[in-house]
Amino acid sequence: MNEKVYVFGHKNPDTDSICSSMAEAILSQKNGCNNVEAKRLGNVNKETQYVLDYLGIEAPELLEKVEEGQQVLLVDHNEFSQSVQGIENAEILGVTDHHRISDFKTETPLYYTAKPYGCTATILFEKFKALGQPIEKKEAMLMLSAIVSDTLLLKSPTTTEQDKKALEELAKVADIDVNTYGIDMLKAGTNLDDFSEEELVNLDAKKSEKDGQKFVIAQVNTVSIEDVLKRKEQIEKAMWKEIENNDLQLFVFAITDILNSNTQIIALGNKTDVVEKGFGKTLENDMAFLEGVVSRKKQILPNIDKNM
Amino acid sequence: MNEKVYVFGHKNPDTDSICSSMAEAILSQKNGCNNVEAKRLGNVNKETQYVLDYLGIEAPELLEKVEEGQQVLLVDHNEFSQSVQGIENAEILGVTDHHRISDFKTETPLYYTAKPYGCTATILFEKFKALGQPIEKKEAMLMLSAIVSDTLLLKSPTTTEQDKKALEELAKVADIDVNTYGIDMLKAGTNLDDFSEEELVNLDAKKSEKDGQKFVIAQVNTVSIEDVLKRKEQIEKAMWKEIENNDLQLFVFAITDILNSNTQIIALGNKTDVVEKGFGKTLENDMAFLEGVVSRKKQILPNIDKNM
Repeated sequence: MNEKVYVFGHKNPDTDSICSSMAEAILSQKNGCNNVEAKRLGNVNKETQYVLDYLGIEAPELLEKVEEGQQVLLVDHNEFSQSVQGIENAEILGVTDHHRISDFKTETPLYYTAKPYGCTATILFEKFKALGQPIEKKEAMLMLSAIVSDTLLLKSPTTTEQDKKALEELAKVADIDVNTYGIDMLKAGTNLDDFSEEELVNLDAKKSEKDGQKFVIAQVNTVSIEDVLKRKEQIEKAMWKEIENNDLQLFVFAITDILNSNTQIIALGNKTDVVEKGFGKTLENDMAFLEGVVSRKKQILPNIDKNM
Repeated sequence: MNEKVYVFGHKNPDTDSICSSMAEAILSQKNGCNNVEAKRLGNVNKETQYVLDYLGIEAPELLEKVEEGQQVLLVDHNEFSQSVQGIENAEILGVTDHHRISDFKTETPLYYTAKPYGCTATILFEKFKALGQPIEKKEAMLMLSAIVSDTLLLKSPTTTEQDKKALEELAKVADIDVNTYGIDMLKAGTNLDDFSEEELVNLDAKKSEKDGQKFVIAQVNTVSIEDVLKRKEQIEKAMWKEIENNDLQLFVFAITDILNSNTQIIALGNKTDVVEKGFGKTLENDMAFLEGVVSRKKQILPNIDKNM
């Protein structure tokens, strides 16, 4: 039996999943558990790579599956469908997460810490404090980066007072200007030049279904909506292809300006009236501008879902 | 909508379920949430009544079901099958528990604190400390009583270092001799005179199944095994009745001496050889004496299950 304990976030890892697994491993080591090792369930995105490069450290190793009985810790997820292959037969020792609980079960008692915060790293920050473990620069930067990413520099409506407090204190420990660093980091994640239009509309696409009607809301972050719209014609072609291939009633492509906290949407399909109703806007050239909207989960999905 | 938040433990409540729900309500109030109210999902047992009488307080009110959207906190359980009627459509704000997670899900993020300790109240004790809330005599007695109950005064193999530490510190706050109080409390729960033999064999009976073979392990706590064995003939009649009515292969009735930490078992059915193999004992007059055995979950069930 492998004596290592693996800690990892969800598939298609974002900055919170990578950084929180590394911070959890550091916390475990500080608590005397030297066999805890961070892993990742997929490629590191550009935003996360910026963080790793800034710190001059390597990403955790890729984990493709786990054997029966492998001891693991989960961060930033709990649903087995979002976790590693073989998770059903692993021994889950603990979970640190900020999502709802679903599609999750264990055979034995475990450590489970969930809080309805904007970011897993904020819960980890509180764990360091509760356990009286000092926070050093490296883990401060990891946790701070995760919070910047998940809350879009505290601008997302998912942000809580605890996230704000954690970010403030972590920035002091890290001794950085969190706004400058945060914008650079977010910008690094918004370089969309390397992606084809087919990749763009699938990069972060969430499929939903209501009363048998399938729809997709995809989202990209940018610092220039205008730049992305230069590719509008090709993006729409890629959207139509998705609609036809997957029998969708609606495809919404949300281009979110993370600096100014606004979102431009492109909506295509049979049911674009749902978008017009949901936001009280008339689509012009298939588009609508949504002021102050940044969160798919809290601001986009509910308005579409209820009119579908 | 009801603006109260209900906090409750599992059905057939034990001392941990009742006392931890009351302690969690007190902690919530100390944190400024004055709308949290403890409830119970069934009758108070004799052991728990002893605690309430000692403190001169009333039991929480009975809760039969909850309406859709009712806000609740769960303690000492998470599985919906062990919870209140209507739980599927309640809004679960938080859970404090020391069991495995199973048959549980939510629509939204929540607070969830689980630790693999011997008792829920030990987790609550740590919550008071982490939140910097003072522990006063009443909540100290509630949490202390729960720990004594779940760990049989720290003698159960489910006991952890954290349970020991919590009990020691709570006894100081409560300013009592925890051994004297604990034994009196446990004794109060062992008065079996009011129960018929049919009731005795069903009082705390857990049904299991392996490869289609059904078996039951029932357990009663006592301070005198001899006293219980005076009713052996009638108890065996009641056990045979259960075997016939429920098509069981095996019925094990475990009489646990909580003062000396031993268990006398009576085993009846077609598969009593499983018990002989499991414990390396020959049954005499359907009985075997198991030295040092007190935990059904950790010491009895595994030995039977693996030979079934």
